Amino acid sequence: MIVDVSKRILIVGLGLLGGSYAKALKRFGFHISAITKEQSSIDYALREQIIDEGSTQLDETIIGQADLVIFALYPHVFVEWIEKNQGLLKSGALITDVTGVKGSVVYKIQDMLREDVEFIAAHPMAGREVSGVENSTEKMFVGANYIVTPTDKNTPEAIRTCTELGRLLGFSNVAVLSPQEHDEMIGFLSQLTHCIAITLMTCNDKENMEKYTGDSFRDLTRIARINDQMWSELFVANKNVLLDQMDMFMSKFAELRTMLENEDVDGMRQMMRCSTARRALFDKK
Amino acid sequence: MIVDVSKRILIVGLGLLGGSYAKALKRFGFHISAITKEQSSIDYALREQIIDEGSTQLDETIIGQADLVIFALYPHVFVEWIEKNQGLLKSGALITDVTGVKGSVVYKIQDMLREDVEFIAAHPMAGREVSGVENSTEKMFVGANYIVTPTDKNTPEAIRTCTELGRLLGFSNVAVLSPQEHDEMIGFLSQLTHCIAITLMTCNDKENMEKYTGDSFRDLTRIARINDQMWSELFVANKNVLLDQMDMFMSKFAELRTMLENEDVDGMRQMMRCSTARRALFDKK
Repeated sequence: MIVDVSKRILIVGLGLLGGSYAKALKRFGFHISAITKEQSSIDYALREQIIDEGSTQLDETIIGQADLVIFALYPHVFVEWIEKNQGLLKSGALITDVTGVKGSVVYKIQDMLREDVEFIAAHPMAGREVSGVENSTEKMFVGANYIVTPTDKNTPEAIRTCTELGRLLGFSNVAVLSPQEHDEMIGFLSQLTHCIAITLMTCNDKENMEKYTGDSFRDLTRIARINDQMWSELFVANKNVLLDQMDMFMSKFAELRTMLENEDVDGMRQMMRCSTARRALFDKK
Repeated sequence: MIVDVSKRILIVGLGLLGGSYAKALKRFGFHISAITKEQSSIDYALREQIIDEGSTQLDETIIGQADLVIFALYPHVFVEWIEKNQGLLKSGALITDVTGVKGSVVYKIQDMLREDVEFIAAHPMAGREVSGVENSTEKMFVGANYIVTPTDKNTPEAIRTCTELGRLLGFSNVAVLSPQEHDEMIGFLSQLTHCIAITLMTCNDKENMEKYTGDSFRDLTRIARINDQMWSELFVANKNVLLDQMDMFMSKFAELRTMLENEDVDGMRQMMRCSTARRALFDKK
């Protein structure tokens, strides 16, 4: 046996991401349980045979038996869950998460957690424009990045288990970053891009523009369809980093504006050549 | 006969766009000629049988026989060509273009043009990240918009011919806008999006970000690979409109920044809900 499928895995929060975890991990034959709000999500997952058991309640047996618990919840719900219910976890359990911000969550959880349970944080950088376990698919992880964000409190074994989890899930790249590095990266690559997309989508009230649009505008606004509850929470949870990223963007944008105003064609062309060269690095391999 | 293929069509500038025009129009059996800088482009087009004749020189016979002349040149090259060579055009010829800005080109051309030749401007909103006639394909026009921008000087017949041309080329949508409406639309939907993409691609010097990137950043920077000569010229040619669009974007972006700074979650969520609702209109039908 290469994979130890005797480990029992519990997923707390069976939505798009939690369901996709279940689908990906069930391929190996793990015993998977789930705790989530809606009975319909449990019913779907049982019917699809991607979980073995599930409950909408805080089932003490299910929680107490889990060796690995994956929390796929909104950040503040995750923190509250640990505050209230960590007593139910098995001694020696490893817990991980899917939270899109790290600095404001990881230390809070680790500081309050029981000594006999370890929390190793991770961020699966995958998503879709739809939600719910019914839309879950392990294909989301192909070509995507999985980032483990350990702190001084983590053991080498937990870090190794968490990177293995990323690979079992099917992520194409598994990386290890500090929570701070993660938040800066995500602030730029993901949160700033969402800020730009929603600004572009709301800054112009002119009607009928969809009749004339091309692919450029569609590309830049794809992510303007956004879960407002989750993203506003993620923005606030990474506020200082994101404000810096926004300022950095605005300052460069203002530079371009000045070049245009001055008809500084050489300056604009240099910026465009830099942009062209750098973008080549980001092509999918 | 529904299409009058006795009309002789000349394409001046046989690059990606000019070549795609030739490929699309040749399907109907028109006599197509081309004048362009590189002999290799002529050779390719003759070999592919998408033109009947071509020259790298100002061939007086080719130019003098054309009923419809399509200029697929950089804006300033187009203006210079008309200044120097309009004497060679056939009396009664109709000329059109592919220029991405209108206000700064259309009136200039119409004002200096001979009385017995009519210029009807059009903008085929299609492109690729590659250039050259060898990469041309009429498939570029499927799903894309073709905008005709007439002025008071244009005859109803020329406007009709030009919209027919858009349909023959295979554009999915053919629309008529004034040059001003066109420039405002394009300033927002295309030029502003390119400004944003090149800013995003150049505002952060941190290395190795491609290792952690997701689809959001890739989507927002696809168009950051940009022909610097052409786009800097297009930006300057639409300077005042584009500056306004940039200001409009910056002002909304600053609003979002303030909301984040104040942790105004309700305000952010409202903006995101507006953005989500509007983006739905832009899905491809």
